[in-house]
Amino acid sequence: MNMDYLRQEINTWLDNYFENKGTYNKVIYDSMAYSVKVGGKRIRPTLMLYTYNMFKNDFNNILPIACALEMIHTYSLIHDDLPCMDNDDLRRGKPTNHKVFGEAIAVLAGDGLLNEAMSIMFNESLKGDKNVLEACSIISNAAGVEGMIGGQIVDIISEGKLIDKDQLYYMHKCKTGALIKSSIVAGAILGGASKGEINILDEFGEKLGLIFQIKDDILDVVGETEILGKNAKSDIENNKTTFVTQFGLDKCIEFCESLTKDAIDLLEKLSLNTNDLKDTTIFISRRNH
Amino acid sequence: MNMDYLRQEINTWLDNYFENKGTYNKVIYDSMAYSVKVGGKRIRPTLMLYTYNMFKNDFNNILPIACALEMIHTYSLIHDDLPCMDNDDLRRGKPTNHKVFGEAIAVLAGDGLLNEAMSIMFNESLKGDKNVLEACSIISNAAGVEGMIGGQIVDIISEGKLIDKDQLYYMHKCKTGALIKSSIVAGAILGGASKGEINILDEFGEKLGLIFQIKDDILDVVGETEILGKNAKSDIENNKTTFVTQFGLDKCIEFCESLTKDAIDLLEKLSLNTNDLKDTTIFISRRNH
Repeated sequence: MNMDYLRQEINTWLDNYFENKGTYNKVIYDSMAYSVKVGGKRIRPTLMLYTYNMFKNDFNNILPIACALEMIHTYSLIHDDLPCMDNDDLRRGKPTNHKVFGEAIAVLAGDGLLNEAMSIMFNESLKGDKNVLEACSIISNAAGVEGMIGGQIVDIISEGKLIDKDQLYYMHKCKTGALIKSSIVAGAILGGASKGEINILDEFGEKLGLIFQIKDDILDVVGETEILGKNAKSDIENNKTTFVTQFGLDKCIEFCESLTKDAIDLLEKLSLNTNDLKDTTIFISRRNH
Repeated sequence: MNMDYLRQEINTWLDNYFENKGTYNKVIYDSMAYSVKVGGKRIRPTLMLYTYNMFKNDFNNILPIACALEMIHTYSLIHDDLPCMDNDDLRRGKPTNHKVFGEAIAVLAGDGLLNEAMSIMFNESLKGDKNVLEACSIISNAAGVEGMIGGQIVDIISEGKLIDKDQLYYMHKCKTGALIKSSIVAGAILGGASKGEINILDEFGEKLGLIFQIKDDILDVVGETEILGKNAKSDIENNKTTFVTQFGLDKCIEFCESLTKDAIDLLEKLSLNTNDLKDTTIFISRRNH
């Protein structure tokens, strides 16, 4: 299925979600919608939909959960960009949320997106079967203190310090990897995958998360602000340990290539049409922003 | 059931929850636990347990959900206290989270508590029946942009402005009322209450939320910082519209009394032992902190 088509479906769902919402509290919706609509590659929901699509052909059924995942991702970006965190002015080529709405509203918009995502998932669980609930529980855990938030905290406390490889792996596995992996595993569970298939896709998701983060670290060094849509060299400026500072650029490019091969080999093990996931894996490892 | 006993059960569950947690991410647990353990009256979980207890006598079964509610309340306090929000240094007589851990960790500790609460609720829903899921969904909605966060945003954007009565009611109904009401309604659903009983308790919860907030506004004017454990007169200093600035102190005291009577009258309609909820209603309306 075409990635642009899926992205369009995701964007339409999100647009509808925020349309005509709010009374006295309207500004919170405006602020949440601003960051959600500013764009982005919609990689997480796309991965979930592609994975689900290998098992079932009614992906519209899980669109709310896929979009909840995008809301969680967006909330994390809004909070990461805050002055007390990475203090970034640019995100996806546009002013960051707090630059437009002020810090207080940005904090609440992040809270709102996280909370709204969870409410959507509870609501879908009420309508669905046990698989829906299990998938939502996995996403919630992946976003939490043993997942994305845990990675972010290690990122924050490590700034300006040299950290070892184990800590770097932990940080990246949690910060970016956990949510990416959960999008794949949740998509598989929602699709009714077998235990064996879930195990393979779990391993694939773990590798894909790592590919994504290594590529992010590479792009921070070799990318250009205009193409990235966020400030290049921000890791260097913030004195962060990254895969590139730890292993060097050449080694990272090599590592990214071999992980991509491993990830695709894993997909080959499945007796399913995995073309879309393969293409997305290559897209993630070769992207320039 | 004795309120101190319930509070002890809640505190023990929360203490156990945070014990020995974390590796590289340990500081997030320390920061979350700091604000959770700093005390507080545990009113929301107590209300849930008391309501549940009118129907069933195994309240330990819903202790995780009751404590998730307290985590949601605590996260909202951490974020409310941030410099970009109310900029408070004191909470429950102790330095606020960001004063101890810094702003970045405080933002993430709030995020972590909200996320953790949701993960606990998904987990309990996986173990429980449809009532558990429904109760958790209600709590999640009450915490969200049409509930607590919605109230907080109106509070923030109204600072220094004169707002009308409708807006003031909306703000308080959402900011404090929604979560308090949800603790009662969720407790009733978890206990297997009938539709009729839930409707009465819903109305009771709405009144109790209002009593809580009016009393809060009264205490901000007549209370002392040492007893309140937070800065008295902070509403005045922040130029906020409150029930007291809107209606005057005498009218508020009167309103608080008549609402308390109405709330207790509602409880009288139930063919249940409502003594604990009555006592808590009186406790909330007469508290000095």
